[in-house]
Amino acid sequence: MMLNWKNFDQLDSYKELKEAKAVCLKDVMSGESGAERVKSYSVPMAEGLAYNFAAKAVDDAILADLKKLAEEAQLTEKFEALYNGEMINTGEKRLVLHHLTRGQLGQDVTADGVNKREFYENEQKKIADFAAKVHSGQLTNENGEKFTTVVQIGIGGSDLGPRAMYLALENWARKQGKLKMDAKFISNVDPDDAAAVLNAVDAAHTIFILVSKSGTTLETLTNETFVKNALVKAGLNPARHMIAVTSETSPLAKNEGYLAAFFMDDYIGGRYSSTSAVGGAVLSLAFGPDVFADFLEGAAAEDRCAANPDLMQNAAMLDALIGVYERNFLGYESTAILPYSQALSRFPAHLQQLDMESNGKSVNRFGEPVDYVTGPVIFGEPGTNGQHSFYQLLHQGKNIVPLQFVGFRQNQAGMDDEIQGSTSQQKLCANVAAQIVAFACGKEDENRNKNFEGGRPSSIIIGDQVNPRTLGALLAHFENKVMFQGFVWNLNSFDQEGVQLGKTLAKKVLAHDTDGALAVYSQLLNI
Amino acid sequence: MMLNWKNFDQLDSYKELKEAKAVCLKDVMSGESGAERVKSYSVPMAEGLAYNFAAKAVDDAILADLKKLAEEAQLTEKFEALYNGEMINTGEKRLVLHHLTRGQLGQDVTADGVNKREFYENEQKKIADFAAKVHSGQLTNENGEKFTTVVQIGIGGSDLGPRAMYLALENWARKQGKLKMDAKFISNVDPDDAAAVLNAVDAAHTIFILVSKSGTTLETLTNETFVKNALVKAGLNPARHMIAVTSETSPLAKNEGYLAAFFMDDYIGGRYSSTSAVGGAVLSLAFGPDVFADFLEGAAAEDRCAANPDLMQNAAMLDALIGVYERNFLGYESTAILPYSQALSRFPAHLQQLDMESNGKSVNRFGEPVDYVTGPVIFGEPGTNGQHSFYQLLHQGKNIVPLQFVGFRQNQAGMDDEIQGSTSQQKLCANVAAQIVAFACGKEDENRNKNFEGGRPSSIIIGDQVNPRTLGALLAHFENKVMFQGFVWNLNSFDQEGVQLGKTLAKKVLAHDTDGALAVYSQLLNI
Repeated sequence: MMLNWKNFDQLDSYKELKEAKAVCLKDVMSGESGAERVKSYSVPMAEGLAYNFAAKAVDDAILADLKKLAEEAQLTEKFEALYNGEMINTGEKRLVLHHLTRGQLGQDVTADGVNKREFYENEQKKIADFAAKVHSGQLTNENGEKFTTVVQIGIGGSDLGPRAMYLALENWARKQGKLKMDAKFISNVDPDDAAAVLNAVDAAHTIFILVSKSGTTLETLTNETFVKNALVKAGLNPARHMIAVTSETSPLAKNEGYLAAFFMDDYIGGRYSSTSAVGGAVLSLAFGPDVFADFLEGAAAEDRCAANPDLMQNAAMLDALIGVYERNFLGYESTAILPYSQALSRFPAHLQQLDMESNGKSVNRFGEPVDYVTGPVIFGEPGTNGQHSFYQLLHQGKNIVPLQFVGFRQNQAGMDDEIQGSTSQQKLCANVAAQIVAFACGKEDENRNKNFEGGRPSSIIIGDQVNPRTLGALLAHFENKVMFQGFVWNLNSFDQEGVQLGKTLAKKVLAHDTDGALAVYSQLLNI
Repeated sequence: MMLNWKNFDQLDSYKELKEAKAVCLKDVMSGESGAERVKSYSVPMAEGLAYNFAAKAVDDAILADLKKLAEEAQLTEKFEALYNGEMINTGEKRLVLHHLTRGQLGQDVTADGVNKREFYENEQKKIADFAAKVHSGQLTNENGEKFTTVVQIGIGGSDLGPRAMYLALENWARKQGKLKMDAKFISNVDPDDAAAVLNAVDAAHTIFILVSKSGTTLETLTNETFVKNALVKAGLNPARHMIAVTSETSPLAKNEGYLAAFFMDDYIGGRYSSTSAVGGAVLSLAFGPDVFADFLEGAAAEDRCAANPDLMQNAAMLDALIGVYERNFLGYESTAILPYSQALSRFPAHLQQLDMESNGKSVNRFGEPVDYVTGPVIFGEPGTNGQHSFYQLLHQGKNIVPLQFVGFRQNQAGMDDEIQGSTSQQKLCANVAAQIVAFACGKEDENRNKNFEGGRPSSIIIGDQVNPRTLGALLAHFENKVMFQGFVWNLNSFDQEGVQLGKTLAKKVLAHDTDGALAVYSQLLNI
């Protein structure tokens, strides 16, 4: 099929959606019709998850419009082109292959003279072998002692995704007896970040993973040298404590300064790299290769759902389209990610990068300005903590913020007590159920200060437990959601030119090559 | 002076600001005029901090309008009324006295039959005495061993502020030899939160602080019981391991289940409680009472700046007014908090509560709907991490997000290396300087994908180092900023009725007293 890369506002369905009759969420969510809605407005996902959109301000008419939009924007066909190896990242002239790190949805993809699925599988296998040697004590430190800790040095996509995934599974793994090594992360060029981590670990028993695709990321190389200097001062040999995750063409590949090197490539964007060697090395060392393999299985299963052309069986696509409707036609500027799970404490920070760096753009994939709004501001904290923080504005503020809840029926640690007639887990779940209805339906009160207007839309993804498989599915869901939204907005969701200017100017400051305002700021900051 | 509590859009200065000529930030920040602007658009703060607003889209004409607004809205007079003990929290009919926890700006305030400054000072002294006994080993566990760890159990304002402050000073204190006890925090009702903390501490040597003003916060009491059960299982006596921070009238006061109880009162809102016993207990135990006293000194010094009627000497008021201008007349919906300091990693999460819970409201202090927008969405992460995450949208997204930078000339740990010609600290500072100019001035490029439009406003607070005094000043700055904005918008910034409905519905779910949509959600979540 010939793909049309049209701007969103050039589509017929854009006009139709613009004229669509708005849904009164409060009305449709009330009474028995509300109950029916919660039962029927649900899309199954992989690994027992389900996406429930009953509390979104859509109805069957709008869903029909969104279905037309999906077809007109060729969302399924574009995803197909992507996973079959078309050059979707037009700005950087690159394929987009992160799905291939966890499964193969379509035909063989060959690039750089190799079958890329085989390449990614091979790297995963290399990592699994390396992790097995570390865990068994076949590979030890200089004194023949086992390594107990792993520290990832990376920033952005080399940090946020892997860190969020590690935190999501740390307590699950402890409970399951699968926590093989503690993991920590160094990211910020602020020297206090590396100093704090070095203070907290026993360097003699630590493996450091340097993660940089290009092998040139300034913050990461700075932190690497910082760590190496500390190791040398401690009488340790850095080459016995460091591994690299990088591209085959980078200066870090085939370098004697590292115990081993594992490869990703230019077809994996940083923010999409948790299922590549970038996440694979640290997660396989921390939890064992089997856990990482399960995580990939969950992501692959959810990718298969995203390839389903039936919108009502494709949660990522539906989530994407409802988000577009809210952003472009209801005018909502931001979206809150609210997982009712302490394990997902840094998941919102990862999605913040995933979404805002992918779709926070003003030009289409051909570099032409677009006349419609694109990616929203993303923020969030775990519930119930958020309830005691920023929910005041979400309930009663002047602007409406769409909400994306995530909830699980079981906890991870299996420690729970019945207190005042219910367990903590029940209290947690009761809160997320209550919030959805409170936001949607509100509650009238003559005292306007205690009045809740309602009409505040949310969706929820519900699952049994945060574990490697559901986590993989959850991650893939959001990656695919962002991809579909990028297709609708006709963006290149896979480059990030917006980060370049700051880097260029920072180099000038460090070279003392500044004038005007920049020179004065530099003085004020004693550079 | 008679105070006028008028809605913002009833003020003459509202109309003037609406008609004010917009400033082209790119133009004014370019060339030598830009350099002059950075030198002159700066307001001194306490503890050597300075608020620089050169990169905000204001000029002398708009500043004159803002000055008029400050006068017409009686900002100085309203602050004066607040610290002199007027009932500013009209909804709950309470005084607002958090400033009094750290100093006295005006006349004696008597409430509940006592001088409140003396009351707060006395609690601070009780905490100092208790901490001294713990640190000296005069107060020990059942086995006569020293306590080494402190765990705060609280949620919302009893968690976010104290946690952010602890993290901000932890590495500073370690370097200064002032880290007396490690601190950890339990907040979420998710049982995995408490389980993880209990796994990570040695309970036999831990003091737990239960923090709940009312003594009835469900999440906190649940977590307390959870912890007590775990202590009993471990053969420990909870009454030998727990202290309470609460109000004198709560069930936790004068209760034999606690080693000690320290008091706050109804005049300290949770999100304003870091300088009360809520922050005082954990920070005094972790760092020693002297460090906490310095923190209060810094806050008190900045409060004195906020009481200055001269707008150009009052950073909190100016910051507030520029924010109002951006929100109500330039139409910006969210604000990013971007501290270039890893120590301030959770400071944005605290400000998110402080701001969104205070001013995320749709009715004025008399409960009447307002026709203008109020508090923005607040989010943020430390730089340089954010640069590799969501800055793409900030630079090139369709909506403009005002930015609040914070930067320091020195790190805390004193570990730094020169790498590629500059230290990590210099790289950190170079990045924040570069970002301000990149956002303001942009950079034209024929390739629109690499084009930066600029015109994206920011301010920066610059200081020498994150330490107890500067941290206190920084905290007070933001508290006072939010207060002044609430005055302009004619809100009651000190209640939070928006959190009630969710609580009520959650109780119904736990009592199985539901129907309609709520009943179905409850089933889906297995409650």
